[in-house]
Amino acid sequence: MRANGETATRLGANALWETLRAGGVAACFANPGTSEMHLVAALDDDPGVRAILVLAEPVATGAADGFARVTGRAGAALVHLGPGLANGWSNLHNARRAHSPVLALVGDFPDRHRALDPLLASDLDGLAASVGGWYRRALSGATLGTDAADALRAAYGPPGRPVVLAVASDAAGRACDEPVAAIAPPAPRPVETATVEAAARALGPRTALLLGGAALTRRGLELATRVAAARAARLLMEPFPAIVDHGAGATTLERVNYVPEFAQAQLAEVDELILVGTREPVGPFDYEGVAGRLVREDARVTTLAAPGEDALGALEALVERLGAPPVGFAPLGPPPAPTGALTPESLCAAVGATLSEGTVVVDESITSGLHLFEATSASPAHRITTLTGHALGYGLPCALGAAVGSAGRVLALVADGSFCYSAPALWSMAREGLDVTVVVLVNRRYAILEWERHRLGSMAEGSASASLMDLSRPDLDYVALAQGFGVPATRATTAEALVERLVAAAGEPGPHLVEAVFAPR
Amino acid sequence: MRANGETATRLGANALWETLRAGGVAACFANPGTSEMHLVAALDDDPGVRAILVLAEPVATGAADGFARVTGRAGAALVHLGPGLANGWSNLHNARRAHSPVLALVGDFPDRHRALDPLLASDLDGLAASVGGWYRRALSGATLGTDAADALRAAYGPPGRPVVLAVASDAAGRACDEPVAAIAPPAPRPVETATVEAAARALGPRTALLLGGAALTRRGLELATRVAAARAARLLMEPFPAIVDHGAGATTLERVNYVPEFAQAQLAEVDELILVGTREPVGPFDYEGVAGRLVREDARVTTLAAPGEDALGALEALVERLGAPPVGFAPLGPPPAPTGALTPESLCAAVGATLSEGTVVVDESITSGLHLFEATSASPAHRITTLTGHALGYGLPCALGAAVGSAGRVLALVADGSFCYSAPALWSMAREGLDVTVVVLVNRRYAILEWERHRLGSMAEGSASASLMDLSRPDLDYVALAQGFGVPATRATTAEALVERLVAAAGEPGPHLVEAVFAPR
Repeated sequence: MRANGETATRLGANALWETLRAGGVAACFANPGTSEMHLVAALDDDPGVRAILVLAEPVATGAADGFARVTGRAGAALVHLGPGLANGWSNLHNARRAHSPVLALVGDFPDRHRALDPLLASDLDGLAASVGGWYRRALSGATLGTDAADALRAAYGPPGRPVVLAVASDAAGRACDEPVAAIAPPAPRPVETATVEAAARALGPRTALLLGGAALTRRGLELATRVAAARAARLLMEPFPAIVDHGAGATTLERVNYVPEFAQAQLAEVDELILVGTREPVGPFDYEGVAGRLVREDARVTTLAAPGEDALGALEALVERLGAPPVGFAPLGPPPAPTGALTPESLCAAVGATLSEGTVVVDESITSGLHLFEATSASPAHRITTLTGHALGYGLPCALGAAVGSAGRVLALVADGSFCYSAPALWSMAREGLDVTVVVLVNRRYAILEWERHRLGSMAEGSASASLMDLSRPDLDYVALAQGFGVPATRATTAEALVERLVAAAGEPGPHLVEAVFAPR
Repeated sequence: MRANGETATRLGANALWETLRAGGVAACFANPGTSEMHLVAALDDDPGVRAILVLAEPVATGAADGFARVTGRAGAALVHLGPGLANGWSNLHNARRAHSPVLALVGDFPDRHRALDPLLASDLDGLAASVGGWYRRALSGATLGTDAADALRAAYGPPGRPVVLAVASDAAGRACDEPVAAIAPPAPRPVETATVEAAARALGPRTALLLGGAALTRRGLELATRVAAARAARLLMEPFPAIVDHGAGATTLERVNYVPEFAQAQLAEVDELILVGTREPVGPFDYEGVAGRLVREDARVTTLAAPGEDALGALEALVERLGAPPVGFAPLGPPPAPTGALTPESLCAAVGATLSEGTVVVDESITSGLHLFEATSASPAHRITTLTGHALGYGLPCALGAAVGSAGRVLALVADGSFCYSAPALWSMAREGLDVTVVVLVNRRYAILEWERHRLGSMAEGSASASLMDLSRPDLDYVALAQGFGVPATRATTAEALVERLVAAAGEPGPHLVEAVFAPR
């Protein structure tokens, strides 16, 4: 960054981007303000980092997470001071639950100015710490390369996590001659032989392997399938994986249910649950008379590989220990296209019938997508991301980041109740010309809340509480909203129409939105 | 809240709403989730609290702030766990800078469930503390009335502030027989006679009174005008007032400029700055070679009334001490309607020419509204709110809350760079049928950032940094976006058209949006 005609000086901001780029940061999703101007200016010197403008911060952090999920490399977001970080906090929460390496860069006040308490000043330290990852405030330009390297190391873990690096605005503009450190994603921590041996002994018909993380890659699924088959053990998938290989050639696992009563029924026959790349699942909320844990009280829960540990290596060791032979996958054709009314079932069937190989499916379908995993199990090989931290508004941003990070098309399934938290992601998809198909699932209500509300007793029509679950009055027009953000859009009200729109969208470059309106109940 | 046929039990959630209602909370802007279901259900028993659904949390907290600014009563927002609070944090920051009494209610996990670390669990304590007001986690249903009363007391101050009350989901559903405490906004703290005397002695031609808070009410302005006239002192307005009485019959003050160099020039002749209901203004950001303080280094800064102290009482005492006679205001007609190209100047003139009495103007016009205060000084009496905390996305939510809290029309001026942070506020305006005119000021760029970026050196067209300041490619269609949210909208590209649209919108009930597209530079 330099004024016209001046000799170039390598600044802290330059050192920061060079270090990030060397460490795998190929894009930065930015919603900058005044205190980030040195960081922004230095992007002009670093064409290896793709600078992508987003219109609000939930998009920045969610896109960084999506990029990280599909690439395994750190995703980066550039946000403005405390309010910018706060706006991006929810999707950092989702990234934390996904173990995604995500770096939130914040331009901050120098200490001398912060002492004056300018109007944008806030408790940035407390806010950044509450993200629950790693946080540093960098005050010196001379060491910004080191700060960036330390932030990347912290983000990569293992396991991966969101980190916040606040950079004092003046530091970013000071000279820095540090060499560039190339930080690579580290290998996962090895699993001890005794742990593998204990799992081998425990495996049997009343044992279940619960898979998450790297165990949900194609290779992990194949190994786990061999292990389970050798001992007639069950295979389960964690309820909300960050990303899972799915479709033809991959084992379709039974997914632990969101509803605790259903999950408890699933796990009733499990005497020992062996965790592979995940943690013990628990109920999402506290309900009167329902246990928070999902396994039986007398069941054992053991860990073969915790998040950050080498789940693949542990599964390989188990395969060898058991002498588990390879298993074959019967080639499956895609399921037939559905017809008739648009329902959650036919919607998922339409996705299953039209999915093309290599697609990344971003699932924020909430109640409308309950059948997704079954419906796409015979589709061409694809990957699915889910709402790891249950904070709404991850879908559109994650799709943006996934599209920047992957070669194939992205298909985002977004419930209408989720859409408005981060809708401006559509504009960045249009600007960047990304191949994303967005399907908004329109039931015009917070269906999940209606269900929760009914648990407490009757809910009268027209009552205050009924009004708070109801997304009609007026109906949102998602086609108009998409067009407002520069994304071509159409509406589908039958299964046939949805199939036709999905096929058409996949055949054209750039983003497309389909408003899928369910038949009335 | 009760199941059909059961005897009603008064629950913690009931006690909470009864206490809030008795303390002035007439509306709650809600974006609830599962852990808020008892609080939502209890709203059915309390028709005195208007339950207003919003589609994202920045709208909830910003609307609560707007309600508080226009009514002086506490505004309330209901949000879901840590991510919900984080999404609303920015507008709580703006509320903190506005000294608005705002209550953010969060449904939380009971401790036994939190101990399991469910996926939505986060460091809520750290996050809520970082808001910088008051925070409590309420775990017992039996004392929820007291918790609500304590939260209200903390919110009212003085000065007012944002508070966070997290309510364990099970506590809200337990019995509570506490009586209802009626918490009223307290009187401001009195100012000591010696302080008034010191100000009286200091007043003179090289003294300036800097007004904020209650000093910017019609009564405060009148008193301050008399004081200043009696001693030939200057009157200044704080740069970002929460709400100020303006227009015919009110003194138009010189507003301290946002740009520090300009503000320093304004204050160069001031030997003593006397603060009345505000704090010392400082530069918004740190700039190389520019002092952060705005007064001369050798100037004195004294406080007649700090925020939360009785600015009106202090001004009354000063008037009496000085024997300052009443001052007359020449009756002014509204300024003429502008014609020709749409520019920041003609836009402000169009507002000035069409403003109706009693309007609340919500100003988030950023660079496009520099001339607003001058342009509306002769318009019928109105009030103006500003971006107190500089966190973008306050305008549309504040307009929503202001419209719920006031009888007259609300006019929101929102820069295109600000629009996308909280656009779903439009839907709640439509649903509630509120008389709001929204003008989106479209220059298709982050003009303020271009200016900051140019400070650092040249910015090449097509460069990464230029791309990050540019809101075109594609152009956002604000008419389509408004229609998507259910708000009728039109576009104006000339001053005449804007005047015509503003008049038409003010004559029809319900919300209207005008996309005001500036002539190219």
